[in-house]
Amino acid sequence: MTRDLSIEDAGRLLLESDDILVLTHKNPDGDAIGSALAVCTALRSIGKRCNAAWTGPLSFSFGVITDTYEDMDFEPRFILAVDLASEGLLPDDTKQWAGKVDLCIDHHASNTGYAAASVVNGNSSSCAEMIMQLLPVLGAEFTTYIGECIYVGLSTDTGCFKYSNTNADSHINASRLALRGVDIARLNDLFFEQKTRGRIEIERLALDGMEFTRGGKICIITITREMMEAAGCIESDIEDLAGIPKSIMGVECGLTLKEQKNGNFKVSVRTKTLDASAICRAFGGGGHKRAAGCECSGTPFDIKVALVAVINHEMTEQ
Amino acid sequence: MTRDLSIEDAGRLLLESDDILVLTHKNPDGDAIGSALAVCTALRSIGKRCNAAWTGPLSFSFGVITDTYEDMDFEPRFILAVDLASEGLLPDDTKQWAGKVDLCIDHHASNTGYAAASVVNGNSSSCAEMIMQLLPVLGAEFTTYIGECIYVGLSTDTGCFKYSNTNADSHINASRLALRGVDIARLNDLFFEQKTRGRIEIERLALDGMEFTRGGKICIITITREMMEAAGCIESDIEDLAGIPKSIMGVECGLTLKEQKNGNFKVSVRTKTLDASAICRAFGGGGHKRAAGCECSGTPFDIKVALVAVINHEMTEQ
Repeated sequence: MTRDLSIEDAGRLLLESDDILVLTHKNPDGDAIGSALAVCTALRSIGKRCNAAWTGPLSFSFGVITDTYEDMDFEPRFILAVDLASEGLLPDDTKQWAGKVDLCIDHHASNTGYAAASVVNGNSSSCAEMIMQLLPVLGAEFTTYIGECIYVGLSTDTGCFKYSNTNADSHINASRLALRGVDIARLNDLFFEQKTRGRIEIERLALDGMEFTRGGKICIITITREMMEAAGCIESDIEDLAGIPKSIMGVECGLTLKEQKNGNFKVSVRTKTLDASAICRAFGGGGHKRAAGCECSGTPFDIKVALVAVINHEMTEQ
Repeated sequence: MTRDLSIEDAGRLLLESDDILVLTHKNPDGDAIGSALAVCTALRSIGKRCNAAWTGPLSFSFGVITDTYEDMDFEPRFILAVDLASEGLLPDDTKQWAGKVDLCIDHHASNTGYAAASVVNGNSSSCAEMIMQLLPVLGAEFTTYIGECIYVGLSTDTGCFKYSNTNADSHINASRLALRGVDIARLNDLFFEQKTRGRIEIERLALDGMEFTRGGKICIITITREMMEAAGCIESDIEDLAGIPKSIMGVECGLTLKEQKNGNFKVSVRTKTLDASAICRAFGGGGHKRAAGCECSGTPFDIKVALVAVINHEMTEQ
C-alpha cells in the first residue's frame, strides 16, 4: 500500500533526500519529459544530485528542452516516478527499479499505488502542473527553462488546450507561465504547427486509403510498413494519426491499424459513445472507455472484418 | 477622425443609446460572430433594442451560438461595429451603413478609424475579450450563453491558444469563462475537432496534389471547383487549408490556390520570414507580413510559374 501525500509533504520528502533518479513511462510524451526535466532541474538548483531517465526516440520538437540535459555521475538512493500510472509502463532499461520507487507524483486517477509514497491528483490536466506546485515547496527558483518544460507538459497533455481534460486551472497555469517569460508562441509552433515532410506524406497516404463502413459510422485507416517507408517517416510521425478517423462527423468509431515490425497490427480504437475498451478486450487488449488498443495478427482485411463484427455487435447492444 | 475611447467610455455611450445595430466583417469568423452575439445579448439583457447583422454561410459549428438568435423589429438609431478593421470589409447587405458607424470596438491595430468613436486594443488576442470587459460597465449579467459567445471568439482567433497572438490575458480570460460554466470541451470539439466528410475529402485531394519547389522551400496546394465538387465540400470547409503548406518543416513559403466561381484563383500566401504582402502586391493584392492574398487569372500552372518567379526574387533579395 502506498502512503498518500500532499504536494507539500512530497516536497519535504525530496528536501530530506539526495541522489535522486527520476523515472517516467515508456514511449514518453511531452508531459513525461516535461515533468521529469522540470523536477530534475529544480532539484539540481537546490543542490541535489539528480538525473532524469527516459527512453526515446523523441520527435525533433523535444530538442528545445532536452538538448541541454546532461547526466550527473552518482548511484541513485531515492527513486522518484513522474507521470507513471503503473510500473508496467516502465521502459525496459529502467524496469530494474520496479518495486523500489520511493515517491510517485502523477495525475492519472488510475495510478496503481506502486510507490512507497504517492501524490496523485486526477483533476490535474497534466503532471507538469503538479511539479509547478512543487517548486515553492522546494524553494527552487521558477526559471524560464523550468517554465518551458512545464508548458511542454501542460500543452501537449491538453492537446494545446483542446482536449476535454482542459480546465480553468490549465489556463491559469498557462497564463502564469506566459507571465514568467515562457515563449509559448515558439513552443506551440514546435509542438503543434511544424510537421515533417514524412508526417504530411504518411497522412496523405493514410487519407488515400481511408475506408468507411456501416453508413459512415465506422472509419478505418491502415498504415503499413511499406507506406511508412514510402513516406520516409518514423514511428513518432504516426503517433497522433489515430485521432483522425474519429474527428470526422458522423463517425462513431475510428480504427487505426499500424503494422508493427513483427508484421502484427497495432489497432487504436477511438469512440464517441461506444465502449472502446470492450471492443479491444475481444482481441486481448484494453484501455479507456473512449480510447483503447489491441494487437492483432493476420492480413489487414481479416483484422478489419473481425473488428467490424465486434463493433457491429457493440452498436446493436447499445 | 475617430474619437478614441476607453472601454468604460464606450460602455457609457452604449448606455445612453438605444435601437442598436451591431455590424461585423464579411466572411465572418468566430470572433466576428461571437463578439456580435455577446454584445447584442448583453445590450438586450439591460433593456435595449438590439440586433446583430452578419452574412453567412457559416460552418455547422456556429449553430451552437446562432440557433437561438432572432431579430427584433426596430429602425436602427445607433450603429456599433465589432471586429471590423475597415468599412471596406462590410458585407454587401450592410454596406449602406458605411460612414454612419457611431462606435467601433476592435482589436485590429490596423483599424482605419472609420467610426465616430472607437476603442481599439491591438494587444487583445480577440475582439470578444474586449466585449467581456464591457459587460460590467453595462451592468449586464455575465451569463453562460454570453460566455460561450466570448469563448468562440477567443478560441477561434487564437487557433485554440496556439497562434502567436495568444498571451497571458487570453489564458486568464479562458479560465474565467471556464469558471463561469462555459463548456469549453464541447465548444472545442465543435470548432477544432469535428470535421465534415467533405472537409476530410478535400484535404486528401489537396495533399494528393501538393507540390514542392526550390528544394522544398516553396509548397503549393491547388483547389479547383472540380475538386470541391468531387469532395462534396462547401467554401467554409476549405477556409483553413491555407495553413497546411507553411506548417511543413523546411517550407519557407506556402501557397494555396483556390479556384473561384468566376474561374479566377484566390491565392493565399503564408511565409515564415519572407514578406508575404510584398509578394501579393506584385499581383494587385496585399495583407500582412506573414499572411497575404491576391487574385489571379489564368491556368493554375501559369499562376504558379508567375508566383514562384516573384518568390524566387524575394528569396534572393533577403
